[in-house]
Amino acid sequence: MKIRIGILGYGNLGRGIECAVRQNDDMELAAVFTRREPSSVKILTEGVNVYSVNDVEKHKDEIDVMILCGGSATDLPKQTPEFVKYFNVIDSFDTHANIPKHFDSVDAAAKASGNVGIISVGWDPGMFSLNRLYANAILSDGKDYTFWGKGVSQGHSDAIRRIDGVKDARQYTVPVEESLAAVRNGENPDLTTRQKHTRECYVVVEDGADKDRIANEIKTMPNYFADYDTTVYFISEEELKANHSGIPHGGSVIRTGKTGWNGENTHVIEYSLKLDSNPEFTSSVLIAYARAAYRMKKEGQSGCKTVFDVAPAYLCRQSGEELRKHLL
Amino acid sequence: MKIRIGILGYGNLGRGIECAVRQNDDMELAAVFTRREPSSVKILTEGVNVYSVNDVEKHKDEIDVMILCGGSATDLPKQTPEFVKYFNVIDSFDTHANIPKHFDSVDAAAKASGNVGIISVGWDPGMFSLNRLYANAILSDGKDYTFWGKGVSQGHSDAIRRIDGVKDARQYTVPVEESLAAVRNGENPDLTTRQKHTRECYVVVEDGADKDRIANEIKTMPNYFADYDTTVYFISEEELKANHSGIPHGGSVIRTGKTGWNGENTHVIEYSLKLDSNPEFTSSVLIAYARAAYRMKKEGQSGCKTVFDVAPAYLCRQSGEELRKHLL
Repeated sequence: MKIRIGILGYGNLGRGIECAVRQNDDMELAAVFTRREPSSVKILTEGVNVYSVNDVEKHKDEIDVMILCGGSATDLPKQTPEFVKYFNVIDSFDTHANIPKHFDSVDAAAKASGNVGIISVGWDPGMFSLNRLYANAILSDGKDYTFWGKGVSQGHSDAIRRIDGVKDARQYTVPVEESLAAVRNGENPDLTTRQKHTRECYVVVEDGADKDRIANEIKTMPNYFADYDTTVYFISEEELKANHSGIPHGGSVIRTGKTGWNGENTHVIEYSLKLDSNPEFTSSVLIAYARAAYRMKKEGQSGCKTVFDVAPAYLCRQSGEELRKHLL
Repeated sequence: MKIRIGILGYGNLGRGIECAVRQNDDMELAAVFTRREPSSVKILTEGVNVYSVNDVEKHKDEIDVMILCGGSATDLPKQTPEFVKYFNVIDSFDTHANIPKHFDSVDAAAKASGNVGIISVGWDPGMFSLNRLYANAILSDGKDYTFWGKGVSQGHSDAIRRIDGVKDARQYTVPVEESLAAVRNGENPDLTTRQKHTRECYVVVEDGADKDRIANEIKTMPNYFADYDTTVYFISEEELKANHSGIPHGGSVIRTGKTGWNGENTHVIEYSLKLDSNPEFTSSVLIAYARAAYRMKKEGQSGCKTVFDVAPAYLCRQSGEELRKHLL
């Protein structure tokens, strides 16, 4: 009997989930739910229905784990506590500051329904968080660093697109190589925002737009760009399509720390990702945690969980015996 | 109330545990147990007693978690199932092929006593295993690579020391940079043993010893060196002491894999360690799992566990709330 996966929201992430389910033969895609008119949504998997999100309750018994693919700003704060009433759910809620509040609201609903809801799954929050935790548990006297990129920041790209005269844009977050090297070398540098990342912007403008003004508006934009060394490249729409249509990302979580009777030895722990497709990798993480949610629920667990609460063995289809034999 | 840690066996690893306990103020060193004459063992921590291992049962109620610092060849297969009768225990059993058998014998004894025994803790097995598991759970269509070094292999150093005419030796395992680069680049190479690591040997010989014979014996030694490109450097005893007295190690676990409807996107996950002191880092991992064993026992759990079975949050002294707020 396969784990029946539902997808709620069919954008980049939903499509990534669909692909990831196909790669895991202990799972099957049961249904896709959308806010759009269902007949207008074409999915890749043959023989699977697309339903309106309004009918979700009717399909309560057809789905073991529902993956919520909405956004963190407005969708998930409502959706996750709502849908955990009917399903085990996984979300990728990534507004770090609001995680405690989101946890509480999902936890209350999940405990009431007896389902499992795993929140903030993905790579940051998610795998990066896990690696921060493991490294902190091991090196109690140490320092954490997180570098992102080189990769596309959707939020920063959107911020550029809102500027008058801009037709399209793609923003890459790029770690500063010298800083990364110093951290890897165990030098424990104190780094400002500017010393950690630079920002590269590829911008397509409307005919006759004032490029100087646009470049200046980008570079001085508070929060998004003002604290960074930002480079703006004006390119054609064709060039943007040809060279910047992917959604790569990645980064490194590094902790350096000291051990010994007098802190005489230094250690460097690094976890790094190089991702061709941010949404597809995120989806692959979500799917592994869907397996965990399914098993935890079967064991009688309920409530809200994060990656910190899930024993690693739950993520794999193999038995404990097989895991010890082949991966330990 | 602090977690009371016992150390059984006071060599490099035992001393590492002692240092790690000092760095974690939710713990205290309760006692050290030795097979030597206790009065001959001088430890670093003031006011802590050294007892004979024969008296261990008498101190049953003074220790929350006993860290077993013996060797995997003959000590731990006997010690871990024996001492889990009296204590929660942690070991660093690292004979990969015998882990299933060791697990079963510890599990039976731990279930009978109601204690928790966590085995094969350290970095490989241990953190490297965990990263193999996470990466496999995420990228189901992929390939695993493990590179060790640059670091000292105790087993290979010992093998050289057994050669006639050799006074002392230090062997470094070194990853082949080109292979590592190809893996990191997502090229999925098939690598032979020789293509993954080289071996560097620093050897001190007795006066008048035949260096050509010794170098030849090293390079042709089956299992240890014959399958590798091995370089032998003859150095003086002083040079060995001055430049090769540390026990550094490290390495990388890498998984590359594909996602997408037709596997069109490639991802690289890498976990890497650069360690000044192999035993001190291993000790720091053991101590984090000692905290987990203490908590799991308190919750009523018992039996043998590995790093795969321990939810990450158990490793940290912070509450779930604090972890979600600061590390997620």
